Amino acid sequence: MSVTFQNNVPATKLDWLSAVKEDLERVTEKIRTVSFLDNELLDGAVNMIIAGGGKRMRPAITLLVGRAVGADYDKTISVAASIELLHTATLVHDDLIDGAQERRGIRTLHSKLPMGVTVLTGDFLFAQSAALASEAENVEIVQTFSRTLVEICKGEILQAQTRWQIRPREEYNRRIYGKTAALFEAAAVSAAILGDLPQVHREAYATFGRELGMAFQIVDDALDFVSDTRKLGKPAGHDLQHGIITLPVFYYLEDNDLSPDDFLDQIQSEDTIDDAVLAVRDSGAPRKALEEARQYLQRGVDALDIVDWSEPLDDLMALTQYVATRDY
Amino acid sequence: MSVTFQNNVPATKLDWLSAVKEDLERVTEKIRTVSFLDNELLDGAVNMIIAGGGKRMRPAITLLVGRAVGADYDKTISVAASIELLHTATLVHDDLIDGAQERRGIRTLHSKLPMGVTVLTGDFLFAQSAALASEAENVEIVQTFSRTLVEICKGEILQAQTRWQIRPREEYNRRIYGKTAALFEAAAVSAAILGDLPQVHREAYATFGRELGMAFQIVDDALDFVSDTRKLGKPAGHDLQHGIITLPVFYYLEDNDLSPDDFLDQIQSEDTIDDAVLAVRDSGAPRKALEEARQYLQRGVDALDIVDWSEPLDDLMALTQYVATRDY
Repeated sequence: MSVTFQNNVPATKLDWLSAVKEDLERVTEKIRTVSFLDNELLDGAVNMIIAGGGKRMRPAITLLVGRAVGADYDKTISVAASIELLHTATLVHDDLIDGAQERRGIRTLHSKLPMGVTVLTGDFLFAQSAALASEAENVEIVQTFSRTLVEICKGEILQAQTRWQIRPREEYNRRIYGKTAALFEAAAVSAAILGDLPQVHREAYATFGRELGMAFQIVDDALDFVSDTRKLGKPAGHDLQHGIITLPVFYYLEDNDLSPDDFLDQIQSEDTIDDAVLAVRDSGAPRKALEEARQYLQRGVDALDIVDWSEPLDDLMALTQYVATRDY
Repeated sequence: MSVTFQNNVPATKLDWLSAVKEDLERVTEKIRTVSFLDNELLDGAVNMIIAGGGKRMRPAITLLVGRAVGADYDKTISVAASIELLHTATLVHDDLIDGAQERRGIRTLHSKLPMGVTVLTGDFLFAQSAALASEAENVEIVQTFSRTLVEICKGEILQAQTRWQIRPREEYNRRIYGKTAALFEAAAVSAAILGDLPQVHREAYATFGRELGMAFQIVDDALDFVSDTRKLGKPAGHDLQHGIITLPVFYYLEDNDLSPDDFLDQIQSEDTIDDAVLAVRDSGAPRKALEEARQYLQRGVDALDIVDWSEPLDDLMALTQYVATRDY
């Protein structure tokens, strides 16, 4: 089967979300159970984070691929919960590092707790996500899990160390692979492993997940310029204000033949940073980034040409379409 | 076989260290390989930490039990490396949380790097220790690993949240179990799992490791009062100065019928904290704590009564004896 994205056919979130709603509730319940620390202060704060946990797109991928390949149901739930909790753990540390006060309108853990307790709570959530991964009793799943965590850390370290620098475009790709796409890849391939698929089909799902993840992050980076605060759950231009250079900036500089050093000067001054955000927003750069995201999505979908098609993959395509067209 | 500790027969570190020297070099080499980030700044700093890695008592336990039970050699090395790297990762976050500038005479990572990069480097080392654990290709090993990390985080969170408080003695036990004994337990039981021992023998090794770990931490807590800075690698009275209440304090308060609140007042004032450290040091409290540590060791050794004895266990007994009598 071949699927092509049409820019003028937006998919709504509900198309895929309703397909996995009940299973996602089981996933959330599982996360809630293992995140309980019997510690009044922490459990309240952790529960808020879990409840505010966004779209749950990563576990939805695991659930849908799991259905398509006939993976064991309970193990799929455990692995989907592991993937989402790993994501949550990284957010706890990221928000601490960024000094972010809120995420999706909910106060971050570190805005309420001492730094040390926040670091340790993130560690605890990492530990519990590893425990959930091991519930699948499958060595390859656990190896996928630890390799993914390694990639996430490498991506985050790269980001932390290259703020306020304009690095080669290739490094942006490596960075967003680690930061985002590695976990999407793990979400898809884990289900393929549970389904005991042949290697070539596992790789197809891995590619699908990876390209979807790259697209997701590129869309996120484009929306950071063009969306408003309410929809994004954080102020527009947030990345640039934290010295994080994303794909729209590469296009903006290239299209306008601008000097990277001049641009860096502009974003490092309080007087000119807002103008820089507006200039990128009003250029063709965000649209070009979104175009590129759609190319990633198309490659991801093409990778699935070789796998056996079944109904859950239609829902997975709706999820993919949603990434291409989400609130813009 | 039954072993009894004699206070007047000190074992030297060399008795057990020479038995595992070569294997420990392989463990260190393995840790070094996976800790490489291809990042000039970080790799230098991480290498310093690994090189300065203290006694390597935890992997030595895994290696010696592994030999005694005929565990697969390569898998034992991987698991021993995983245990030591997990320990290293926790130290990176602990030192950050404590604000410690050096450990064993080597500058801590966070004294050289921004907070964010330190958090992420600790996360990266956690991830790689999970990857090493998964190299054993044994689900029970991985489950032991993640359960242990959960216990460590719980212990550290408890410690971070109960500073400057005198809590029930039972909570001290829970705290040091998480902080230290859980990993000693994992070090011993992992090798028993690799050796495919029957459940009752695994439990014997688990008990041995756990009691050894409890003793190790109690000795550490006693040495914190009586040892000098050079031997300890950190200033004496360090725990009390950070509001961490340890076993000698419980004995000191009990023996002298002192009010916990008065003692807390004393250690929270710069004028009186040094006197408080000296008062505990010069009381019978550290000696009583060491006595209690020896009881833990004896219980640990007694647990091994049921296992088949072989030469590597003699080396393990030398290691145990070393914990009872190390630099005092």
